[in-house]
Amino acid sequence: MVGVKPLSRAAIIAVGSELLTPSKLDTNSLFITDRLNELGVDVAVKAVVGDDRDELVHVLGVALERVDLVVLSGGLGPTDDDVTREAVAKALDRPLAEDERLVAHLRARFAARGFTRPMPENNRRQAMVPAGARVIDNGNGSAPGLWIDHGDRVVLLLPGPPRELKPMLTDVAKGWLSERVAGAPLVRRVLRVAGRFESEVDQVLAPLYKEWAGRTPSVAATILATPGSIEIHVSTRAASAEIARAALETAVAEAVAAVGSNVYSTDGRLLEEVVGELLVERGLRVGVAESCTGGLITSRLTDVSGSSRYVDASIVTYSNQAKTDLLDVDAALIDEHGAVSEPVAIAMAQGIRHRAPADIGIGVTGIAGPTGGTPEKPVGTVAVAVASATGCRVRTFRFFGDRGLVKFQASQSALDMVRRMLLESSG
Amino acid sequence: MVGVKPLSRAAIIAVGSELLTPSKLDTNSLFITDRLNELGVDVAVKAVVGDDRDELVHVLGVALERVDLVVLSGGLGPTDDDVTREAVAKALDRPLAEDERLVAHLRARFAARGFTRPMPENNRRQAMVPAGARVIDNGNGSAPGLWIDHGDRVVLLLPGPPRELKPMLTDVAKGWLSERVAGAPLVRRVLRVAGRFESEVDQVLAPLYKEWAGRTPSVAATILATPGSIEIHVSTRAASAEIARAALETAVAEAVAAVGSNVYSTDGRLLEEVVGELLVERGLRVGVAESCTGGLITSRLTDVSGSSRYVDASIVTYSNQAKTDLLDVDAALIDEHGAVSEPVAIAMAQGIRHRAPADIGIGVTGIAGPTGGTPEKPVGTVAVAVASATGCRVRTFRFFGDRGLVKFQASQSALDMVRRMLLESSG
Repeated sequence: MVGVKPLSRAAIIAVGSELLTPSKLDTNSLFITDRLNELGVDVAVKAVVGDDRDELVHVLGVALERVDLVVLSGGLGPTDDDVTREAVAKALDRPLAEDERLVAHLRARFAARGFTRPMPENNRRQAMVPAGARVIDNGNGSAPGLWIDHGDRVVLLLPGPPRELKPMLTDVAKGWLSERVAGAPLVRRVLRVAGRFESEVDQVLAPLYKEWAGRTPSVAATILATPGSIEIHVSTRAASAEIARAALETAVAEAVAAVGSNVYSTDGRLLEEVVGELLVERGLRVGVAESCTGGLITSRLTDVSGSSRYVDASIVTYSNQAKTDLLDVDAALIDEHGAVSEPVAIAMAQGIRHRAPADIGIGVTGIAGPTGGTPEKPVGTVAVAVASATGCRVRTFRFFGDRGLVKFQASQSALDMVRRMLLESSG
Repeated sequence: MVGVKPLSRAAIIAVGSELLTPSKLDTNSLFITDRLNELGVDVAVKAVVGDDRDELVHVLGVALERVDLVVLSGGLGPTDDDVTREAVAKALDRPLAEDERLVAHLRARFAARGFTRPMPENNRRQAMVPAGARVIDNGNGSAPGLWIDHGDRVVLLLPGPPRELKPMLTDVAKGWLSERVAGAPLVRRVLRVAGRFESEVDQVLAPLYKEWAGRTPSVAATILATPGSIEIHVSTRAASAEIARAALETAVAEAVAAVGSNVYSTDGRLLEEVVGELLVERGLRVGVAESCTGGLITSRLTDVSGSSRYVDASIVTYSNQAKTDLLDVDAALIDEHGAVSEPVAIAMAQGIRHRAPADIGIGVTGIAGPTGGTPEKPVGTVAVAVASATGCRVRTFRFFGDRGLVKFQASQSALDMVRRMLLESSG
């Protein structure tokens, strides 16, 4: 492609009336952005348009004035509602014509699925192609993708279902698209942090942000925070992926040094995965005695494939009687301190260690809300204990947010306490 | 507002460079769409633009040619990156001027937060207002909203943080906006379905869709399906909310008659809420013996506020030994049938009934994957048993998808079996 201007600025247009309702978001654009950024292409604007040919013609025309690559997703099905092919042909002023090879391909695909009646004529719509377009085969559905060179610019049409779009774009990104970019790939790393507020992390990282921005290549960072979970996204772009990765490696190391042991992963792994790997390394088993988290901690631990290597059993005890019957928590202890208290959390952790049995026992008791709070123990108060053969740790937290957020933050804190105990143990 | 053309077609523009990265979506537009639809305003297009003044001026200019209401979110902060005010002033060709009352308000707000140093001059940016704009006070942050009448059209600027945007838009929708719409409000209901495939539901509803489309007022329906969960969104628009609600009531009743008892809620309630309400009505308690679901069923049950009225205890048994020790499952039964089998699921359900104790016991055992499958019992095979004082039901399912999807579908099927048992019991 010598002599053709490299693609550098993209627009992403999602097509579908359901994406303009209050119940559905276009999520394909995240995947598309990731693939484009990796190739050094920036996304300048994203748009969502309904199944409305005229509107799409208009939006596409406007986009083509501003960017050199337009990626469209959706609207390639066989029904009258699927307007993307027609709109693109009109916006680019090219005739639409049936592609004979595609018709044959669609008929064969239809026959292979075991239907005895012939392919409905409707499906021939999917074989209509704007003049000059290159067809991209769809290994996972009937809608082919289309690549259209339009002067120095490119219009790329992808099917809407993610399981069709993702493999198709991955192939195009490795092939035709990679030949049309200038080659300043973006490399990205995700660090995850537990046990700190966003503002605290932001404060310790602020001096680094400034320094990184002045380097060559410059390194950018963004913090994404939800209660209980902070992600630091660090990215850079360089002439080669090797240079970018080396620059990123340095920045990641500096961020870890600044934030400290609160960083639990530098490669996007979740806390339950990190804890699981530490348990496997040390050959230990964990059991959880859950009250306010209601099974969430065990569910997260067992979300990880292979977790049967370190989880035998957990017990959810919502009532006081169950804490006594199933975890051997002394009823007098509950009477004296209340069910939400550090002594009860400790007794629960020790109870599950013996009952599961497990090397490490976690006990969690708290008030998830919205009711049940008192002035001394408001909603969000959670006691977490972690017991092992060598001792027991306990902490009381106060979380904010609704019931779901309190449960999640409590699960996050409990898993992080286990992580720290495992890291500090000689292993 | 006599004589002014009512607003009917909107564009939503989200502003912020972070919304053009692979890790963050604009979700404000869902809430904005919901409020606009309720007032009878359609959303024709949505766009996301970075913190780029020229790009925003361009996109806003294009939108104003096509719609009569533009709602912008974000870019109203105090920093140089916050370009929405300037871009709107430029696109509408109006001067920006400092609003004295706003400066005083911002200073007072700053002082009230206990800072001893005066407000940074940067924050005065937030008091800059395009000529003719009406200021909307922000009860939850420092960025005021702005309402600009521009001929027959309106441009509405809202702050980006959802906790600031939502109450502000709710107020505007009840006030200024409600006075500018023609009054054909959209009314919507969400039906939820368990135990059916999307294609099955689609097939039984297809004749209704056609009939509904021809009625006055016409009723529209959309199916949103993810594995284990199908939502039917039914909506209509009429001269009055009463007429719309009556039309919807008829359509919902017809849909329920067609789909049958697989519809578990017609008001958006989740399955765990429906099951919880049935348990409370019947004064029964439930306990769950979970293997492959790893605590997810109990976590979902306890996501519901007030679930302590019907949950005392659950036990997660991942290993065979734990099934025997904690749920009294006969080891010989496991040897004979395998851990993933209907006899073991029944024994687990009966075991938790006695151990929790509970009126209804759920036993779930299966292969969540990705490893552990065999030709006879492939990944996704799950046996679910529900035991009560009067008997026991058991079913074996075969779910598709990754580990998380198998867990979720298994939890959904187990809760639906409990729902059916409770509905059929004399209660």
